[in-house]
Amino acid sequence: MTPAPGRILSNAGVLRMEGESTLKTPQDYLASLAAMQHNVWLNGHQVARPWEHPQIVPGINIVALTYEWPQKPEHQAMLTATSHLTGQTINRFTHIHQSVQDLQNKVEMTRLYCRETGCIQRCMGVDALNALSIITHHTDSMFGTAYYPRLLDYVQYFQANDLVGNAAMTDVKGDRSLRPHQQADPDLYLHVVEKNNDGIIVRGAKAHNTLAPYAHELIVLPTRDMREEDADYAVAFAIPADAPGLTLICRGAAPSSKREMAAPVSSRYASVESLTIFDNVFVPWERVFLCGEWQMAGYLAECFATYHRHSYCGCKPAISDLLLGAAALVAEYNGVPNASHVRHKLTEFMITAELVHACGLAASLKGQPQTSGTYMPDLVYANVGKYYAGTNLHHEIELLQDLAGGLIVTMPSEEDYRSAEVGPLLKKYLAGPASVAVDDRVRCFRLIEDLTASKFAGLLMVAGVHGGGSPEAERLAIYRSYDLESRKEMAKRAAGIAT
Amino acid sequence: MTPAPGRILSNAGVLRMEGESTLKTPQDYLASLAAMQHNVWLNGHQVARPWEHPQIVPGINIVALTYEWPQKPEHQAMLTATSHLTGQTINRFTHIHQSVQDLQNKVEMTRLYCRETGCIQRCMGVDALNALSIITHHTDSMFGTAYYPRLLDYVQYFQANDLVGNAAMTDVKGDRSLRPHQQADPDLYLHVVEKNNDGIIVRGAKAHNTLAPYAHELIVLPTRDMREEDADYAVAFAIPADAPGLTLICRGAAPSSKREMAAPVSSRYASVESLTIFDNVFVPWERVFLCGEWQMAGYLAECFATYHRHSYCGCKPAISDLLLGAAALVAEYNGVPNASHVRHKLTEFMITAELVHACGLAASLKGQPQTSGTYMPDLVYANVGKYYAGTNLHHEIELLQDLAGGLIVTMPSEEDYRSAEVGPLLKKYLAGPASVAVDDRVRCFRLIEDLTASKFAGLLMVAGVHGGGSPEAERLAIYRSYDLESRKEMAKRAAGIAT
Amino acid sequence: MTPAPGRILSNAGVLRMEGESTLKTPQDYLASLAAMQHNVWLNGHQVARPWEHPQIVPGINIVALTYEWPQKPEHQAMLTATSHLTGQTINRFTHIHQSVQDLQNKVEMTRLYCRETGCIQRCMGVDALNALSIITHHTDSMFGTAYYPRLLDYVQYFQANDLVGNAAMTDVKGDRSLRPHQQADPDLYLHVVEKNNDGIIVRGAKAHNTLAPYAHELIVLPTRDMREEDADYAVAFAIPADAPGLTLICRGAAPSSKREMAAPVSSRYASVESLTIFDNVFVPWERVFLCGEWQMAGYLAECFATYHRHSYCGCKPAISDLLLGAAALVAEYNGVPNASHVRHKLTEFMITAELVHACGLAASLKGQPQTSGTYMPDLVYANVGKYYAGTNLHHEIELLQDLAGGLIVTMPSEEDYRSAEVGPLLKKYLAGPASVAVDDRVRCFRLIEDLTASKFAGLLMVAGVHGGGSPEAERLAIYRSYDLESRKEMAKRAAGIAT
Amino acid sequence: MTPAPGRILSNAGVLRMEGESTLKTPQDYLASLAAMQHNVWLNGHQVARPWEHPQIVPGINIVALTYEWPQKPEHQAMLTATSHLTGQTINRFTHIHQSVQDLQNKVEMTRLYCRETGCIQRCMGVDALNALSIITHHTDSMFGTAYYPRLLDYVQYFQANDLVGNAAMTDVKGDRSLRPHQQADPDLYLHVVEKNNDGIIVRGAKAHNTLAPYAHELIVLPTRDMREEDADYAVAFAIPADAPGLTLICRGAAPSSKREMAAPVSSRYASVESLTIFDNVFVPWERVFLCGEWQMAGYLAECFATYHRHSYCGCKPAISDLLLGAAALVAEYNGVPNASHVRHKLTEFMITAELVHACGLAASLKGQPQTSGTYMPDLVYANVGKYYAGTNLHHEIELLQDLAGGLIVTMPSEEDYRSAEVGPLLKKYLAGPASVAVDDRVRCFRLIEDLTASKFAGLLMVAGVHGGGSPEAERLAIYRSYDLESRKEMAKRAAGIAT
Repeated sequence: MTPAPGRILSNAGVLRMEGESTLKTPQDYLASLAAMQHNVWLNGHQVARPWEHPQIVPGINIVALTYEWPQKPEHQAMLTATSHLTGQTINRFTHIHQSVQDLQNKVEMTRLYCRETGCIQRCMGVDALNALSIITHHTDSMFGTAYYPRLLDYVQYFQANDLVGNAAMTDVKGDRSLRPHQQADPDLYLHVVEKNNDGIIVRGAKAHNTLAPYAHELIVLPTRDMREEDADYAVAFAIPADAPGLTLICRGAAPSSKREMAAPVSSRYASVESLTIFDNVFVPWERVFLCGEWQMAGYLAECFATYHRHSYCGCKPAISDLLLGAAALVAEYNGVPNASHVRHKLTEFMITAELVHACGLAASLKGQPQTSGTYMPDLVYANVGKYYAGTNLHHEIELLQDLAGGLIVTMPSEEDYRSAEVGPLLKKYLAGPASVAVDDRVRCFRLIEDLTASKFAGLLMVAGVHGGGSPEAERLAIYRSYDLESRKEMAKRAAGIAT
Repeated sequence: MTPAPGRILSNAGVLRMEGESTLKTPQDYLASLAAMQHNVWLNGHQVARPWEHPQIVPGINIVALTYEWPQKPEHQAMLTATSHLTGQTINRFTHIHQSVQDLQNKVEMTRLYCRETGCIQRCMGVDALNALSIITHHTDSMFGTAYYPRLLDYVQYFQANDLVGNAAMTDVKGDRSLRPHQQADPDLYLHVVEKNNDGIIVRGAKAHNTLAPYAHELIVLPTRDMREEDADYAVAFAIPADAPGLTLICRGAAPSSKREMAAPVSSRYASVESLTIFDNVFVPWERVFLCGEWQMAGYLAECFATYHRHSYCGCKPAISDLLLGAAALVAEYNGVPNASHVRHKLTEFMITAELVHACGLAASLKGQPQTSGTYMPDLVYANVGKYYAGTNLHHEIELLQDLAGGLIVTMPSEEDYRSAEVGPLLKKYLAGPASVAVDDRVRCFRLIEDLTASKFAGLLMVAGVHGGGSPEAERLAIYRSYDLESRKEMAKRAAGIAT
Repeated sequence: MTPAPGRILSNAGVLRMEGESTLKTPQDYLASLAAMQHNVWLNGHQVARPWEHPQIVPGINIVALTYEWPQKPEHQAMLTATSHLTGQTINRFTHIHQSVQDLQNKVEMTRLYCRETGCIQRCMGVDALNALSIITHHTDSMFGTAYYPRLLDYVQYFQANDLVGNAAMTDVKGDRSLRPHQQADPDLYLHVVEKNNDGIIVRGAKAHNTLAPYAHELIVLPTRDMREEDADYAVAFAIPADAPGLTLICRGAAPSSKREMAAPVSSRYASVESLTIFDNVFVPWERVFLCGEWQMAGYLAECFATYHRHSYCGCKPAISDLLLGAAALVAEYNGVPNASHVRHKLTEFMITAELVHACGLAASLKGQPQTSGTYMPDLVYANVGKYYAGTNLHHEIELLQDLAGGLIVTMPSEEDYRSAEVGPLLKKYLAGPASVAVDDRVRCFRLIEDLTASKFAGLLMVAGVHGGGSPEAERLAIYRSYDLESRKEMAKRAAGIAT
Repeated sequence: MTPAPGRILSNAGVLRMEGESTLKTPQDYLASLAAMQHNVWLNGHQVARPWEHPQIVPGINIVALTYEWPQKPEHQAMLTATSHLTGQTINRFTHIHQSVQDLQNKVEMTRLYCRETGCIQRCMGVDALNALSIITHHTDSMFGTAYYPRLLDYVQYFQANDLVGNAAMTDVKGDRSLRPHQQADPDLYLHVVEKNNDGIIVRGAKAHNTLAPYAHELIVLPTRDMREEDADYAVAFAIPADAPGLTLICRGAAPSSKREMAAPVSSRYASVESLTIFDNVFVPWERVFLCGEWQMAGYLAECFATYHRHSYCGCKPAISDLLLGAAALVAEYNGVPNASHVRHKLTEFMITAELVHACGLAASLKGQPQTSGTYMPDLVYANVGKYYAGTNLHHEIELLQDLAGGLIVTMPSEEDYRSAEVGPLLKKYLAGPASVAVDDRVRCFRLIEDLTASKFAGLLMVAGVHGGGSPEAERLAIYRSYDLESRKEMAKRAAGIAT
């Protein structure tokens, strides 16, 4: 994997990869991270990429899977794609969707990965690139700009190097009742502070940047619709995650203390969030994809949101799958797998999972090619699916806690369980049905503690609500794009009112 | 349309229709009904088929549409199909689904028709034929019977004559805690009372037979799983709706009194339900599709249910469409179309409609060919969609009533509105915004009264809950067919439990 | 009962009743109605008070109970009160509440009556008088008026004659986005058109006036807060229901056709709604309780609403009681009283009923005396209770339909059931468990049809949503009166933020 | 506070306290804990009572408040009571309820304390004593035993020394499909292993023992109904928390790492849970309150549950109060306090809080004296209130997360915020409206993180679901005790069915 992507501010001269495939390996990925500059902070200290830190490693473990599984024959059809630019086999996370089948593959790929990891994270980069492939095309046709060919160059570079991209979208926003240019501090939304022949200089901060410290590239998008006075805030670009001027202040979701019985889903795999500060960061023009065309900012935000909510229609069902599995397991370990209320509750998870996934499939099936040829999932279905997921997750958490019982929050620590003095007492009294190993039962409670009653659970819930946009944003998107007039016409006909 | 289907007890010798298309016209349909025997009762009187009765005409009006619209060029792709038996163009309501696209077409056709009619009714016949095409094939391979070729003959006859078929499934059931053979009266489930060389003789009653008095054919299916002692109850067949021994005791959903301002959706179009009594009815062998193979009864019931729940994923969104339209209209007629709580509530309808329709699309997309080649929609998605529809409709009714206000149940009668004495007072005081005609506003309230606060509304709600099976039946179907074990494996991996 | 209240426009000179009790009998009540002028319209015809019309009789039957039951020794403590004005025993429906116990008695009396009748109707009059007893006192102290003593005179007259009062509050409102004085037609809210030495003349219309055609008195209240420009609309008064210039255009909730098997709850007992037109109606000053003090209109509306929502905390649990009873009965008649899902659903009704009734009790317990000495229920609890009732009733309807099954909307008519030809077939096939009489099972289905799938059910649902004010109005009342600041202080302390 | 309660295995000879009041001070409380034996384990180590450990101190801080506030004149009426045994002024947490007002005071006292602390914990002791005061009286009258006078002696001792009692009820249960005597290990439910002249010896373990390490006394109750074979498991008694043979293996809910900006609600105040092992613990007869009367075990469990669910009707509204305050505060700190969806969501908290508290008040108002004279809250209302609280808390958590936004789980650590290098960047970019101090906004996010997205939040949620019993247990209690027959009679009357 040469040249190391962390070194490159311009992708203009990068040689295209030759051969049929551009797929990299987990080892390539780790090596490329190791070559990057240090600009990551955690718990008050600067930390080096990538291996050392127990709160960053779980994130890297997740992304490494996205290099490992596409190598497996049984997964290749779903996890790889053929580049419409080069014809090469590429990682699907770098693909611009060319068909309904591509959209369906993305949503099913997401569920597959997330069943193992909870959150695969790499989806956001591909969602950002696809949104840009649509909006840059529109922008060029409306404003005579040349963003689209520039983007295609970047996509080729991205595919050729099998890069990991983050999407840096949500500004810190300050006073939410004010527009960007009205804020007391103009930097509370990221904006262009200077343009010159070589590129632009930007300042501001983006919040909730999952994946940023172990991504190669940050893909920066505006967070909302803009008005003319906000033109400097209408900016989109890509930048290496270790570019000069960038500071990533991070927070890991993994448990801070290491436990032998920790649930792998929250300790081997976990995400990292970054508050990413852009302190006069230079971006060369070949990486700028929107700059001042304020009319397009809202469209770009919404287009990305649609793609990302479509992704959620894959990952949230995977969370339900996991919660369901844990629920069925703990019911068995408590000796009551067939109680009627248990079956009733297990069915709730199934219904929730499949309502959401159905929306992902429907959004794919009803996906439409846009002017650039990129397929976009149906906005209404993508939003409905994410909305339903985000507003039902807490009920799933409740059901799982209900089925598990109080031990998930009252069980003594692993240290007690391992203690020579009191450990035997715990092993005696934490026994379930005779057929279940006590260790397994305890691990099961630990899993459910992690999934429902921990900092990790907190992230899970909040990501469910706010990931890809808040419920209010989703409702608004649905309302705005729904064909309400045709329904009113139907009602008039049904009422016998002349139309 | 000769020979009149009402005369035919055996389809064995029927000539196949020649030409490219077998599509009939509304006039053909009406003529064929007129030729049928009289065996329909309503409100204590025998009524002749078809025109006279204001409570049956609305049902016929609906079915007539299914002959009219397929003639329209813009609808032909969706509303017709190519018979896999003859290559002829047929009404999609007589088609055996041969692809994912066929399944998708069925669910979208259903939404299209139901936006006009509320309930298109003819879906049940095609759902029954498709279920039989799967289960007869399985039965033949397991029991060495020859039901499948017999069914294909019948399907050809059905397609050639563009027939309307009902599905008569739900037995009256007596004591629901007892199995069929345990009932005090053995006739409380329909059963075979005699077999001879020519055919079988059956006795019993089927309830909730929508469409029966203006259908050509009744397609009779078992209502549940059976045990060996219930073998006589494991019977499926088709019979003309006016065959000797059949009595249809009916009830219409249309308002009993005629009103000028009646909402067309409940007076021009409305269904009729029949309690259909089989009093020693003879069925020739060529129309018998299951007889004694008790092991298959439950599969046949579930297979039909899956098809029919799939249909609901088309019709229930159409109901939501109509309720949404009425809600938006009344908000406008009350002068508050843009209040934030109004928008919030309108979005609720959109979300409900599309969650259900997404399940219909997903069930189609994940449909699979069975051994006979027939495509069957995915059971889980079909059930999840119907379940969600049936358990959210009442909330939609509530929202619409909330938006409309009390007038829908307190507004004086049409006679008062037309009265020379008090009519002018009503026209004065029922005015809304100056831009809205009072007549239109009154019609809108009448529509919402019909949709939410009438006998018609009652049918709408109960059909939402019980149509295609009760919520409990749907939950059970989901639970039974869901791959729970794989989720438990996921949870074990996530917990670090050896698997 | 002399003098007949229908004759009296002024109560100034009425002699007080002597003796310990003013309680009248059902016969007195009927006689007093018979003496009233004719001004009631129904279905395009003028109808005389009271007996003739099958759609008005059920309403009168209900109110007659409020004269009958207080005579029964076992009910006297709850259904009667001691007048704080005269010390006489009075009907509690004419009482001004003097204690927490009075408030509790009112809410429990309401549940008691409504268990028999569904809606006792007479509550609205006592709620209106109590609200007036508070606001007239406030108005006098703020504006130097003398409404309160005038009201006390009227209350004495009302108690002495054991009168039935309606509350006429909701104006027809026209364009709901406009204030009263902004409407295209100034009469779309009721207003004062002339004042003279003797009294005022008013014009307009009040909607949803339950009980009006068989009430003695209409108690008219403003429907909302007013601004200075709306001063003419800030008017409250009492008027005999047959005063010159009044026209009551009515609609009955009872089934229009008489059935032998009709459920008593919807045919023996049912309410009537009036759209009441005030065409230059004269009101003498002694019956005017607000006139122009626009600042008080909103308070009066809200005060009445609080009392009336408090009443709903009694009547809605009674509806739940009835729905629960029907649910348990039909489960038994279907043979499945002990299925786990049945028990689960029955418990839902119990929870809903008691959450609402708990609010009624809590609103009573936390009731406070106002400056006039009248006890007012706690606003928050009264609103929370009604809100919960109104937004959960549809779910109860759904559960009952779910438990009953489709027969409630597909069962043939009573004429078929009584028919010599098909009746025996129905009696055979509508049988349930052997221990249940078919007639009883059929009656049970008819009851549930009436309660959930009829015009009567429509009124029930809409009254649940809108009776006493819409859910939005209730939410607003709660939000406005809740002590939010103290909760923010709590949060600040909990967060370690200096307060 | 002499003699130290930790020393006393028998209370038989204890001198009664003289004087008008037995109230102790926080200092007395701390001194008494210091005198106790060491038997508490945490994180694999034995820890001494009481001060040292940062995970136990927050629990002690809470209980200390229950000694401090009753000294305040403004709280004395609510927080103290008059002993019905001695006439002395006692802490209400040691009182046997003698009136409806006592019940109301308890539920309002609980809300008051919990607004400050989240969970006051000391409620469980008084709930256990009250339940014992009822059931011992019944047991004596049914079995001729003398538990009740023995209990009264103990209560006097408890009141005289102003003791803190825990309720140790939930056994570890092993295989939940098996009864106690059927378990593979007979110790999986606590049971009597020996009886002698002096007392009994017990073995087993009780889980979820909140408060145990800083309580003086453990009050042990059976966890469920028993059959004859389970007679050894039907045992209730009181024992000092440091008695020989007891081991408390604990877990604290406070954050394990100390933070300067920690929310006081989760770091100054937090509970501790104990898994309490009884390894052949001797209990003298004067402290045994049930022993072998298996018929009473279920009644005792249910009676305690009713009292404790009644307590929840005070503490859960306090949690809603706090969540509401945090929601309103963060909306203000984000600049959107008046957005319509914000107001809508704030109102949700209000409704939930008051529905639950209304049940607490109603359960008090409808409380009835039992044969011993003790007042017991109404079972249905207590259960309905707790059930509603437990099944709506997660939705409140969701709403608060929704209003707060993603920063509650993505905000960098306090160390970063304090860092000289990146701290200034965070202070710049975490600013909200100009009028809000950044520090306050950050503290507000930390509070919401603690309340909704942390181990502490996990405990909060699970305690909401399972505290005082699971939702299923509550539903069952409601179903069993509800007067369903009277509702069926109502339905029969309403249907016209002879009764």
